Amino acid sequence: MTGLLEEINSPADLKKLNERELKQLASEIRQELVSVVSANGGHLASNLGVVELTIALHRVFESPRDKIIWDVGHQTYVHKILTDRRRRLKTLRQYHGLSGFTSREESQHDPFGAGHASTSVSAALGIARARDQLGENYNVLAVIGDGAITGGMAMEALNHAGHMGTRLIVILNDNGMSISPTVGAIARMLDRVRFDHHYSSAREKGQRLLYSLPFGRKLWKVVKVFQDQATGLIKHGGFWEEIGFSHLGPVDGHNIEELEAALIKARDYWGEKPVFIHVITTKGKGYHPAEADAVYFHGVPPAKPSSRPSIPTYSEVFAYTTLRLARDNPKLVVITPAMPEGNSLNIVKNEFPDRVYDVGICEQHAVTFAAGMATQGLIPVVAIYSTFLQRSFDQIIHDVCLQELPMVFAIDRAGIVGDDGKTHQGIFDLSYLTLIPNLVVSAPKDENELQHLFYTAVNLRRPMAIRYPRSAGVGVPLDSIFKEVPIGKSEIMRRGDDLAIIAIGNRVLPSLEAAVMLSANGVNATVVNARFAQPLDNELILEIARDIKNIITVEENVLSGGFGSRVASLILSQRVAGVRLKSLAIPDEFVEHGSQAALRAKYDLDAEGIFRQALTMVTNQNEQLSNKSAKLERD
Amino acid sequence: MTGLLEEINSPADLKKLNERELKQLASEIRQELVSVVSANGGHLASNLGVVELTIALHRVFESPRDKIIWDVGHQTYVHKILTDRRRRLKTLRQYHGLSGFTSREESQHDPFGAGHASTSVSAALGIARARDQLGENYNVLAVIGDGAITGGMAMEALNHAGHMGTRLIVILNDNGMSISPTVGAIARMLDRVRFDHHYSSAREKGQRLLYSLPFGRKLWKVVKVFQDQATGLIKHGGFWEEIGFSHLGPVDGHNIEELEAALIKARDYWGEKPVFIHVITTKGKGYHPAEADAVYFHGVPPAKPSSRPSIPTYSEVFAYTTLRLARDNPKLVVITPAMPEGNSLNIVKNEFPDRVYDVGICEQHAVTFAAGMATQGLIPVVAIYSTFLQRSFDQIIHDVCLQELPMVFAIDRAGIVGDDGKTHQGIFDLSYLTLIPNLVVSAPKDENELQHLFYTAVNLRRPMAIRYPRSAGVGVPLDSIFKEVPIGKSEIMRRGDDLAIIAIGNRVLPSLEAAVMLSANGVNATVVNARFAQPLDNELILEIARDIKNIITVEENVLSGGFGSRVASLILSQRVAGVRLKSLAIPDEFVEHGSQAALRAKYDLDAEGIFRQALTMVTNQNEQLSNKSAKLERD
Repeated sequence: MTGLLEEINSPADLKKLNERELKQLASEIRQELVSVVSANGGHLASNLGVVELTIALHRVFESPRDKIIWDVGHQTYVHKILTDRRRRLKTLRQYHGLSGFTSREESQHDPFGAGHASTSVSAALGIARARDQLGENYNVLAVIGDGAITGGMAMEALNHAGHMGTRLIVILNDNGMSISPTVGAIARMLDRVRFDHHYSSAREKGQRLLYSLPFGRKLWKVVKVFQDQATGLIKHGGFWEEIGFSHLGPVDGHNIEELEAALIKARDYWGEKPVFIHVITTKGKGYHPAEADAVYFHGVPPAKPSSRPSIPTYSEVFAYTTLRLARDNPKLVVITPAMPEGNSLNIVKNEFPDRVYDVGICEQHAVTFAAGMATQGLIPVVAIYSTFLQRSFDQIIHDVCLQELPMVFAIDRAGIVGDDGKTHQGIFDLSYLTLIPNLVVSAPKDENELQHLFYTAVNLRRPMAIRYPRSAGVGVPLDSIFKEVPIGKSEIMRRGDDLAIIAIGNRVLPSLEAAVMLSANGVNATVVNARFAQPLDNELILEIARDIKNIITVEENVLSGGFGSRVASLILSQRVAGVRLKSLAIPDEFVEHGSQAALRAKYDLDAEGIFRQALTMVTNQNEQLSNKSAKLERD
Repeated sequence: MTGLLEEINSPADLKKLNERELKQLASEIRQELVSVVSANGGHLASNLGVVELTIALHRVFESPRDKIIWDVGHQTYVHKILTDRRRRLKTLRQYHGLSGFTSREESQHDPFGAGHASTSVSAALGIARARDQLGENYNVLAVIGDGAITGGMAMEALNHAGHMGTRLIVILNDNGMSISPTVGAIARMLDRVRFDHHYSSAREKGQRLLYSLPFGRKLWKVVKVFQDQATGLIKHGGFWEEIGFSHLGPVDGHNIEELEAALIKARDYWGEKPVFIHVITTKGKGYHPAEADAVYFHGVPPAKPSSRPSIPTYSEVFAYTTLRLARDNPKLVVITPAMPEGNSLNIVKNEFPDRVYDVGICEQHAVTFAAGMATQGLIPVVAIYSTFLQRSFDQIIHDVCLQELPMVFAIDRAGIVGDDGKTHQGIFDLSYLTLIPNLVVSAPKDENELQHLFYTAVNLRRPMAIRYPRSAGVGVPLDSIFKEVPIGKSEIMRRGDDLAIIAIGNRVLPSLEAAVMLSANGVNATVVNARFAQPLDNELILEIARDIKNIITVEENVLSGGFGSRVASLILSQRVAGVRLKSLAIPDEFVEHGSQAALRAKYDLDAEGIFRQALTMVTNQNEQLSNKSAKLERD
């Protein structure tokens, strides 16, 4: 192998290659992708699917002068390879390495960062309008998948773009599936377009036939009535023409020549309308395991050196619990926005296909659809990742909690998620959920408690949220009989007089470990499993505040508005004097990507960090007590 | 006038009326609407537009067995009149009176409450699926306007509904404007449908013409090719057929007979598809001032007994400030989701039509569209109501603050909004904004400070939010020269040793008033205008905590995660001992409708309440100091 890729140092170098070399380049890129993703984990199938599209884009357009906005950004490894980041690709998704998504910090070739779906058309339209207003002249492109385009936000932006008529190119990367096979009528409409290649020729045949007949030309005018009446609708992709776009395609997304022809047409189009290009790609293209199972290969975990005895993940325990609860209670239904595999929900879907709803990448609709079901006595479980639930914030307030509709939010990937980085951290949910009245907000200390909290939530006649981390459980045995957990009651794990560590969720066990280490240093700590961030266990917290005085709270959430800040408010409002409180949490900043362990260590949220912080607190106090007058500390 | 309306005690009574009586009823309802809205304020034009539609719905369907979900719910006064609430209509939007929107608490005829736009199809679809799953049999209808239907959430739901094929009726109430004339390509598409009534007859004419000719029947088959190729697309409303709906209409929304015919057809349709009915109505129908200016009459303030010299509203000062800033800075642009009048932005739009973007009811898109502009050096001001900004929560985090894009959030209707009630209170923003890293969050004490904060925000190279209330300003003179306000610095309004009142936004002046009342009672209070909820003025707050000890915080926001809770966290984390803190805020509950004054009084957020709370705090302390040992208080 000659190593063409070695010679590509910038997009400009692509322009020198001939057709044969381009094919070889595509093949080298695919090998590179497989090798990096096998080592680091990440998105394989979606990147294999856009190799030719990315090459064609960088041959026809001039990045960074032209702005290419990739929706979600998980399919940009090829883009990164071709825009000066190939040598760093081995650091992909690693601490201080390349991001797994687009990022403005990382490269001038990423004009708008992403991570969540359906934002690209809005951002591209904003950039295009700014260009017009500033009198500049460059191309702006959004590349969006057939899953993300059904997200409401993308529809809002397409509608606005069609209305404004700015010069803008929207490329639909249509592989017939988002993460899971795409849901919805719009997807079905695209399907129809995909298989309906014969219209144009039928039209020409019709015209020829008519012209060959007596009165033919006159009759052709009659035929034209139908075309005129249905302007735009009568051709392929009529919907896009109808909402104000010029339409090109469908184009074979693995044929560079065909792609370039369409892109050049779009680039050189100077009409008033935005241009929509429909590109058909195959997810996992060119790598057989990925092509055959694109869902699994969507996100690939890094290869592990050795395998430990497998402990189920929190997601799996959630799914098995849901399955058991669904067997007992025919009113239980599950709603997930495009994440049945990520949430391990397929085991429920297999047994109860009619009670699991994958609504597509539509978090807003997911929540209110569930709320509608709740009004009729069903018990909806909305399974969603913490970071994506941010999209449903208003619906949780306005549709669920204001109406006090009984339903369960199963919030996966809460806390530090690791490799996915800034856009995907689940570090805000304790804050944005506890500010909502009428909502119970909980987090289990381990996967066994997860079961019991779910059982409790399903039987509670109020809305309740349960957040749990992206990881394997801790390996505790799972009780076979579910227990109700009393709402707002925490659990004392260990008693000690020197200080109290009040932790929530997956920070409880590291706090216990820290207590053991403290004990070896002569410090006796109480450890509390808070279980609930709302309502707080006021009684126990105040008792601790009065008796122990030194309190550390621990949570995998930002400081602002989080668990620790609620404890602080409570203690001050109840005027418990002399309390010293330290809240261990994520400081108010966005958390980069890296392993969960490294990031927890960074923020003193692991056992070692909690131990160190606790020791400092107790030691300082003793120093203060001995070195200074006690009055100073108390006054 | 015979008073037909008097005889309507439930929807069933409507069925007895004949055509002439129905017309009279419609006219009586219109009179009732004008009279109630003139007295209480509320939405006039939209209700006048649905008189016939509401009557027809309640004649053809059996509420509450059949579920009618009104989107937004501001157009349901007629529905309330016809469903047992006529006698209470005079209490509309008043404290403990009828809500101005739908509400599950209020009536069994309101199966799903609303207030925010675009939720109805999601809720209706959830109810319909619950019905199917529970083996029940009733009709579910969503009534949605042409503005709300362009909201992303509605598009998500329509897409899902078309895909699932559940029995469901969606009625588009198309009056050609949402609050402002509807923006967007979809609206334009509806326009085309509205004026294109002639297609069917053209089709018949074409067929007749062909049949009369030699080879005619054969040629008709050629014509049919085009129809078959474009199934669904070739007829009116093809889009709806295309995404999986059966389509009826357009129907004249002021012709009860025609409406009933369409509704009966939909009700008796037992196919697998949901049914879409396109109804054309005229906003303000039957009341000439409202018909002519539907935007003004959309929301009508109650008639005032006398008029005081007019003080500009915060919205107006915002708009004038924006206009002045826009004149000086060509990079300033304004984005508003369907609220140019509510935000008083028309004065900016008149002078700079190309720099004010009304994007329709699309809060998500609005924010990311603005973020795209910010990447190119424009300075976008996103003008939006506090309660609707909740829809953009994820976009503020993911697209704006994570990327630290300089832009300004102008948050109108923050705090207690009054008559609009639970769904519209702007009482969460201080909490949900301060949990976001990189965002400056501020609130002015008066309209003059509003000017200066805007000037500051536009020149700051970071994202900044400014929240201000729904009301007239306080009447202070407006400085002609803008000043920069130092970020995170508060202002001492008055000094006193007995306690400190730290207030934010529109609660600063009532706190000053309270301080005057306290002074008359021998209590000397410091009053601080906090100005910023993020970053906090740590230095000043800690100084006050050390020196004064008794602190009251005041804000028009919920307690959880709000300004007071941030002050509590700060004080406890810095271990300032002996501080007594009382946070005056909205307790963690949804706030009903009523006058702003009544609600502020209820929560001790007016001068009187702050005075009372402060006096209690100081008095209790003195009692404690004299009756008990001082140690108790301090230990």
